[in-house]
Amino acid sequence: MIKKIDHIGIAVADLDSALQRYQGLTGQRAAHRETVERQKVDTAFFPVGGVRLELLRGTAPDSPISKYVAKRGEGIHHICFEVDDLDAAREEMRRAGFVFIEQQDEQGAGGTRVAFIHPKSTGGILFELVEYPNAAEPQIPNSK
Amino acid sequence: MIKKIDHIGIAVADLDSALQRYQGLTGQRAAHRETVERQKVDTAFFPVGGVRLELLRGTAPDSPISKYVAKRGEGIHHICFEVDDLDAAREEMRRAGFVFIEQQDEQGAGGTRVAFIHPKSTGGILFELVEYPNAAEPQIPNSK
Repeated sequence: MIKKIDHIGIAVADLDSALQRYQGLTGQRAAHRETVERQKVDTAFFPVGGVRLELLRGTAPDSPISKYVAKRGEGIHHICFEVDDLDAAREEMRRAGFVFIEQQDEQGAGGTRVAFIHPKSTGGILFELVEYPNAAEPQIPNSK
Repeated sequence: MIKKIDHIGIAVADLDSALQRYQGLTGQRAAHRETVERQKVDTAFFPVGGVRLELLRGTAPDSPISKYVAKRGEGIHHICFEVDDLDAAREEMRRAGFVFIEQQDEQGAGGTRVAFIHPKSTGGILFELVEYPNAAEPQIPNSK
């Protein structure tokens, strides 16, 4: 049901120093930077072997990321899993006891659909699910 | 220098309920379970698209994982990156300002060598580096 880890969201207090830190860690510059007005965050992505590290800095005191950093300090904010079919994954996970934050999925960047699982039902971790439009890979049936 | 994310370490209070949770999340049973006496932890691994989720439960009150859970609650404990050459990675990262917890690397499971970067120098995240013995892939020079 889960295909892979899409990205790991990392909350930072200062994006410039974090960019320098992750350039030192990964040996490369950020592949992509974007401000997401609706969520009040500046983001920067560092791809590491098929998974992206997503730096997140709040752009206003009422941004969820600013609140997170104020309360818990910098650190890992969420893990995002890619799924083929968000509706099916949501239904299966709900049956397995996971609680979703919103009843409906939200629109993510680039035409994606996303949903968040409440940390209360996961052992303290905020999980995001993402479904990309037009699944890139054909469904190849398993021989078993 | 970093090849990929090798695993994400997740601290849990109760391994049985965590196993059930991650079976529900990933749709599969744990691929591997192991007790690491030296670190006083029970571990269980769930592979997700090339990255392993490593559940960690302390087996004694003075286990680093038990202390972590007592202080911060369940959640993500560390991220481990695979590197080709631990000595070279350590040296480059030290020059980039990262501080290692131990001066010498430690012996990990299965003949690996591991080193940990102090969260003080990373923006609050415990990073582990691992070098596997006998690198599986030949070094192919980049054309540029």
